[in-house]
Amino acid sequence: MEMNVSQIAELVGGKLYGNGAIVLNSVANLTTAGPNDLTYAEEKFHARVPETRAGCVIVGAGSFPDQTVVVVRNPKLAFARAANLLLKPPEEPREVHSTAIIAEDVAIGKNVKVGAGAVIEPGASIADGTIIEAGCYVGRRSRIGQDCTIYPNVVIYADAAIGNRVIIHSGCVIGADGFGFVRSSSGYVKFPQAGWVIIEDDVEIGANTCVDRGSLEVTIIRRGVKLDNLVQVAHNVEIGEDTVIAAQTGISGSCTIGAQSIIGGQVGIGEHARLNPGTVLGGQAGVLNSKHVKTREVLWGTPARPLKEFLTQEAYVARLPAMHEELQKLRLELEALKKSQ
Amino acid sequence: MEMNVSQIAELVGGKLYGNGAIVLNSVANLTTAGPNDLTYAEEKFHARVPETRAGCVIVGAGSFPDQTVVVVRNPKLAFARAANLLLKPPEEPREVHSTAIIAEDVAIGKNVKVGAGAVIEPGASIADGTIIEAGCYVGRRSRIGQDCTIYPNVVIYADAAIGNRVIIHSGCVIGADGFGFVRSSSGYVKFPQAGWVIIEDDVEIGANTCVDRGSLEVTIIRRGVKLDNLVQVAHNVEIGEDTVIAAQTGISGSCTIGAQSIIGGQVGIGEHARLNPGTVLGGQAGVLNSKHVKTREVLWGTPARPLKEFLTQEAYVARLPAMHEELQKLRLELEALKKSQ
Amino acid sequence: MEMNVSQIAELVGGKLYGNGAIVLNSVANLTTAGPNDLTYAEEKFHARVPETRAGCVIVGAGSFPDQTVVVVRNPKLAFARAANLLLKPPEEPREVHSTAIIAEDVAIGKNVKVGAGAVIEPGASIADGTIIEAGCYVGRRSRIGQDCTIYPNVVIYADAAIGNRVIIHSGCVIGADGFGFVRSSSGYVKFPQAGWVIIEDDVEIGANTCVDRGSLEVTIIRRGVKLDNLVQVAHNVEIGEDTVIAAQTGISGSCTIGAQSIIGGQVGIGEHARLNPGTVLGGQAGVLNSKHVKTREVLWGTPARPLKEFLTQEAYVARLPAMHEELQKLRLELEALKKSQ
Repeated sequence: MEMNVSQIAELVGGKLYGNGAIVLNSVANLTTAGPNDLTYAEEKFHARVPETRAGCVIVGAGSFPDQTVVVVRNPKLAFARAANLLLKPPEEPREVHSTAIIAEDVAIGKNVKVGAGAVIEPGASIADGTIIEAGCYVGRRSRIGQDCTIYPNVVIYADAAIGNRVIIHSGCVIGADGFGFVRSSSGYVKFPQAGWVIIEDDVEIGANTCVDRGSLEVTIIRRGVKLDNLVQVAHNVEIGEDTVIAAQTGISGSCTIGAQSIIGGQVGIGEHARLNPGTVLGGQAGVLNSKHVKTREVLWGTPARPLKEFLTQEAYVARLPAMHEELQKLRLELEALKKSQ
Repeated sequence: MEMNVSQIAELVGGKLYGNGAIVLNSVANLTTAGPNDLTYAEEKFHARVPETRAGCVIVGAGSFPDQTVVVVRNPKLAFARAANLLLKPPEEPREVHSTAIIAEDVAIGKNVKVGAGAVIEPGASIADGTIIEAGCYVGRRSRIGQDCTIYPNVVIYADAAIGNRVIIHSGCVIGADGFGFVRSSSGYVKFPQAGWVIIEDDVEIGANTCVDRGSLEVTIIRRGVKLDNLVQVAHNVEIGEDTVIAAQTGISGSCTIGAQSIIGGQVGIGEHARLNPGTVLGGQAGVLNSKHVKTREVLWGTPARPLKEFLTQEAYVARLPAMHEELQKLRLELEALKKSQ
Repeated sequence: MEMNVSQIAELVGGKLYGNGAIVLNSVANLTTAGPNDLTYAEEKFHARVPETRAGCVIVGAGSFPDQTVVVVRNPKLAFARAANLLLKPPEEPREVHSTAIIAEDVAIGKNVKVGAGAVIEPGASIADGTIIEAGCYVGRRSRIGQDCTIYPNVVIYADAAIGNRVIIHSGCVIGADGFGFVRSSSGYVKFPQAGWVIIEDDVEIGANTCVDRGSLEVTIIRRGVKLDNLVQVAHNVEIGEDTVIAAQTGISGSCTIGAQSIIGGQVGIGEHARLNPGTVLGGQAGVLNSKHVKTREVLWGTPARPLKEFLTQEAYVARLPAMHEELQKLRLELEALKKSQ
């Protein structure tokens, strides 16, 4: 989409210095940007602003007489907002591909795309403006809201409820059976995985991530949650609003993750753990089963402990050889003292 | 499927108190159950039994005069068994979808479903009662047994042998090349991944899990094994009967995992490790290459060590600041003592 | 493909002892090989060479009078080279399946296979000799080089550039959006993921691995890199030539991994880390954000530290109970000494 610099300045509530008539149609970084690109610069990169060929640079402060700049309080945020408009693909007429297999009773909204070979089972519904790309599968009675983008080869099992403006990347599996078995004398018996899954508005889910359905309850991903690639969300989990979870993290059954939490990559969270809002977990941290994490705690390590405690322990472990040596010295000196008496 | 309470009681070998004529057709938990739902209650939830609206509650003991209950020794197991019948989908006529691409010589059994767009290559076979959902791929000469469910978008490479009643969830990749390369002066040369993969009866494999084919041997998942989502099983691995492995665990090449083992999530097991039957590994544990774990050992941590040893070490590490302080005190007192002589 | 033993000996530059006329058409290990199989034996398995039924054994030295053997300096490498020829599938005429959905302007080379139901979007190109298996998706303007094999159900987003002889296993997602969001007062705003991804020649990528597109830059996987299954490569990462990365490892945004590195399984590498060429990381290691690893360093543990340091610390931690006991003894003896004065 095309916008001129004045429109961008207005959009982000910034102050324009330079030529507001420059037309922008894309974004880039300071180095690669051309005359129709918008870019931005954090303060540490201000020295590079005069050299950029970008049509416009969003900055937080400073004077750049030879450049067209827009000054705002949070340049990265303003850039992201403007980029989301500039990069919006041109509105094409969307259609249901002739090779898509859509059950007769499926409710399809206006301006919906269903890609080649996608399969939509009976009782499902797809609301206005949503894109279901090629090779996706939407199970029976699953409901997908408005303006969602479901990338190719996503699988959504039966009875999932997906909100509006949800983005699901390729290879995700939403609503598969959770991992529940009861031991018997002749092997394991499958515990019913008869619950469902709710994904609220404005959630984004990375590639090849798995969100299991509830067993007898619901798995729920609340508004604004962002999950990275290859994340595992087990049955009956609840993830609170605006929580972000980095790649390859695993959340075991029946955990509750509070809102506005920040969870690093490759974190493991044991069953029935309860993380209050604003929890921060460092990468590769391990939270024990049934652990209760207090509001806004910052935890690190396995088993996860307060960051300060973690760093203290690390420091003491690093000091162990010196402690060991001191211990030996004390022993020798004490023996000498004993003898000298 | 519909059953009345008397039939359930008989099925699970339990004692019925109340109205055996109540008709059940689904399952739920104590809170959400309605009059046609079966539920169950562990002892700690007995206080909530009188309040449930469930048609029948399976319990382990106790008297609930206002409720229809079935008393058994293991309520959760009995519930799981009954649920597997109640939740059985009605027998629909299964068919091969007109858009499935099935090679001419593929042997398709009776009552088989092949979903839209699924591809079955030459020489493959699908036995009676098996469901291959939409978008699946079955490679050349792969054989799939009876009454399996292969969820949408599963890929099975050539020459896999899959038993009966196997469940494979969406996004799984069975039989891809293992990770084997030989270093040469001009980069890596691919080591042949020319083996095959066997998955025995009653195995369940979670979404997006990978089971590689053997290199020159076989990768084998034995009867009753349950793998969670996003698990990695490398070439030439053998996993023994009735072993369960939680999400995101990785098993390196040529490992042997004994029967009835319980492996937590995000565990890493190095090449050529040999775990005897009944091994228990805590979440995020790391087993070194070629490690031999004895029968029924319980290991924790990285490198994995006996749980007791792990806990002892954790406790001593936590005590390090105090030890350090004591060391300093001893030093001061010793110096004082020296001077006072 | 058929070759006789003399041809194999010539191919690998080895010395032949025995019958050069034996015809080989496959490979196997010492135990399972039959009369038309090539196998190899490392020195520790030489005792088993006389028992094998293989048509030919590649060895590093030794005399095996009753066997046809080829002697070379590196038997495993020679075996791998020969196996890659012997196992080459017979050249079949390749074709574009009638159910593939290929945009009008897609450039398709000679001898290309496009499998059933595969989707290739406008502006893409597929060079000579490449195989795109069933159910794959190739996004707009993505270019795939010569002689690649893209296994079933791979998704390649728009604007990816893939070199020659690249192998991508099933379920991989190449070029999905990276994980970038800017916090605002009303939740997270998506940071543009408008970059692209380059995969150079001779790369192999395991099943269900994810390689994200750059945000404003490029994600680049250089010539000869081998990635195992379920690996995560975030936006703006660069991986140097001939680096191998084992399963379930995660590489965060903007990392640089030097050439010829060897990265174990389940390793986590934090944002903006810079690993010089020849880095070796043990399984489950954790590299902190922005860490700079020197050339050919061997690191272990979390946070990753030099292997020697790691082992020393492990040893001292194991010694903690003894140190604690010694500390208590010293205390008692010191008190006794004080009293005795």
